[in-house]
Amino acid sequence: MQPNPERFLKSLHDLRSIGAVGTGVVRPAYSDKDIEARKWLAAQFRDAGLTPYFDPVGNLFGLAGDGPSLLMGSHSDTQPEGGWLDGALGVMAALEVARAAKEAGGPAISVVSFQDEEGRYGVTTGSTVWAGGRSLAEADKLTASDGTTYAEGRAKMADLVSGDFLDPGRFTGYVEMHIEQGPYLDTSGEAVGVVSSIVGIRVMEITLTGQSNHAGTTPMHLRRDAFQGLAEFNQTLNDRLRNVVTPETVWTIGHVSLTPNGASIVPGKAVFSMQWRDGDTDRLKRMEGIIRETIAEVAGARGLELSIGPMIGLEPVAMDAQLQSALAEAAEAEAPGKWRHMPSGALHDATSAARHMPVAMLFVPSINGISHNFDEDTREEDLVTGLKVLARAVASLG
Amino acid sequence: MQPNPERFLKSLHDLRSIGAVGTGVVRPAYSDKDIEARKWLAAQFRDAGLTPYFDPVGNLFGLAGDGPSLLMGSHSDTQPEGGWLDGALGVMAALEVARAAKEAGGPAISVVSFQDEEGRYGVTTGSTVWAGGRSLAEADKLTASDGTTYAEGRAKMADLVSGDFLDPGRFTGYVEMHIEQGPYLDTSGEAVGVVSSIVGIRVMEITLTGQSNHAGTTPMHLRRDAFQGLAEFNQTLNDRLRNVVTPETVWTIGHVSLTPNGASIVPGKAVFSMQWRDGDTDRLKRMEGIIRETIAEVAGARGLELSIGPMIGLEPVAMDAQLQSALAEAAEAEAPGKWRHMPSGALHDATSAARHMPVAMLFVPSINGISHNFDEDTREEDLVTGLKVLARAVASLG
Repeated sequence: MQPNPERFLKSLHDLRSIGAVGTGVVRPAYSDKDIEARKWLAAQFRDAGLTPYFDPVGNLFGLAGDGPSLLMGSHSDTQPEGGWLDGALGVMAALEVARAAKEAGGPAISVVSFQDEEGRYGVTTGSTVWAGGRSLAEADKLTASDGTTYAEGRAKMADLVSGDFLDPGRFTGYVEMHIEQGPYLDTSGEAVGVVSSIVGIRVMEITLTGQSNHAGTTPMHLRRDAFQGLAEFNQTLNDRLRNVVTPETVWTIGHVSLTPNGASIVPGKAVFSMQWRDGDTDRLKRMEGIIRETIAEVAGARGLELSIGPMIGLEPVAMDAQLQSALAEAAEAEAPGKWRHMPSGALHDATSAARHMPVAMLFVPSINGISHNFDEDTREEDLVTGLKVLARAVASLG
Repeated sequence: MQPNPERFLKSLHDLRSIGAVGTGVVRPAYSDKDIEARKWLAAQFRDAGLTPYFDPVGNLFGLAGDGPSLLMGSHSDTQPEGGWLDGALGVMAALEVARAAKEAGGPAISVVSFQDEEGRYGVTTGSTVWAGGRSLAEADKLTASDGTTYAEGRAKMADLVSGDFLDPGRFTGYVEMHIEQGPYLDTSGEAVGVVSSIVGIRVMEITLTGQSNHAGTTPMHLRRDAFQGLAEFNQTLNDRLRNVVTPETVWTIGHVSLTPNGASIVPGKAVFSMQWRDGDTDRLKRMEGIIRETIAEVAGARGLELSIGPMIGLEPVAMDAQLQSALAEAAEAEAPGKWRHMPSGALHDATSAARHMPVAMLFVPSINGISHNFDEDTREEDLVTGLKVLARAVASLG
């Protein structure tokens, strides 16, 4: 099987031009540009001898006949201010491998661009609904930050829908290429990462409630200052987690909202997000215990009421051993000594597919680790190496 | 001089009814209810034999003739959701003392209700402009949170204006009674506080800029997390200030704004307020040094850019010794052993008046220290004790 790098790069740049803004791309799920891109992709699939198929939420498949096939792809929607590669890379690399496979007489490769991977409405919404992780009725109620519902979003593509959700059972596996979105490969000068697992995520919203008070007349020892509770929790948590985590473990307080949030008022309420990720379920659980214990201690000592919202969790997803070996052997052949096994710290559509079939992922470097940003980029030689590893691995599966 | 508690309480409740909402009052500066209250007050002043005088920003004076007089009062505007006493108490107590003085044949007492003490547009805006702390042209550009300008606000009262700003030189001093707005008197069971000084304030906005990044793919050791910088600064600062402060010193981080403020994104930017108050200028300065040094250290160690906005400061204001003694002696006569000297942690119109004349303040207890809240209240016996102390002190000044 001989993938054609020029044809691949041309297709990738053609897709980039739909919704291009400077060096970036603005093509959020169900926007005019997103739908335009999906129509263009459907035509590309047809040209490659694949049958385009839009499911009820706008996931676009390019099917290699009615028999079993290996599914490859990613997503073509972007962040509100997205990079040009992100999901687009995986879709176009999959299409090029499918073309090369057609030309070589096999194997059967179907291609997919999942819808709303970037979470305008939920998280990996299109692949999650397809895989049965969330019912369509439930998903329809999700709202975007502009107040529109998922039902309204997908209604914009209703005229394109080919039929019901495709049975995942028709696919023998799922392989996705993606940019790393982190700094490891770029820093080490490696060309390719073979993903070992997609890390699990836990996130919950924590509310500390004290008492809003005049910042001039309320003595320090009588304050029930919710921000002080948050800051102390953060510092204590950092100390305690050091004994439990690995260098790959991450935890983040990314969202903070104080009430009433004025310079002259002791903050009476702090609502904040607590998110943590790791490849190991046991470690996620140990971290949860430390988080709950620490916040309860701090709240108790400071006379703050504590409320912890529901914990949303995604389990770590192990990549299929056979598919992973195929990728690793292909990586060693195409980029000897310049690849590594690595976990994926980001969530991907592969997590959804893994509910039904063996999955694997391949990473190429992100320059300076930047993604979800107009500056996102990858060296052309790395894009091509990734394509070649993908094609070689798929060919070896025969 | 015999002040009449019933007449005083009736006037206070009459004023309360204008803009009453439940147990609270909604009468922000230049609102219809605020203007209605000022018209009602002008009529009350006239009935008491005082000449009503609206200056160009709506400060309402009740003048005791053209000769020198002692000015007493506070403000009748409220917070957006204000308590019923706050500034109203000081205005109505002053009016009752002025009535009693008239009945006793002296001394000459003028009364004032300053405008926008609560800072809908600035801070103690009306008294500040009157006292020359800010030019009218400058003040006119101040905007409220609803986007209206101070010029637009005061235009609503333009038809009431009597003439230019009154010369502060016509007043021999300024005495203001106010609720404490803090817990000290209520906790100790004391009836009256004789204010020794109004604490000085320093406030500045601090910005830490790191890098927004994917919370899944960015390893902890490569993050430049602005929230982590803020939390570490807060904890280190608390430790370092302990050696410098007194039990009355306060410091507050009341406003925090993270960017982009999402659960899955390492915060790239944190903008926050740093405010501190103390009665001693040197201590305020030492605290400033520790704050600047600590934030610079934390920012440097974490690779965060640091930007500190202009520091806005109000110097501590000492109360006049003679006026303070008169209040202290009257307090001991009316409430033997149940009063104290104390600093005011809150800012008051007395700060503005002090630019031109000796000033003094008297506090009565706030139940549970609550103010700027519909639940704000003071026991009736304490209101009356405050009135009597005020009248006795003023009489003793002759």
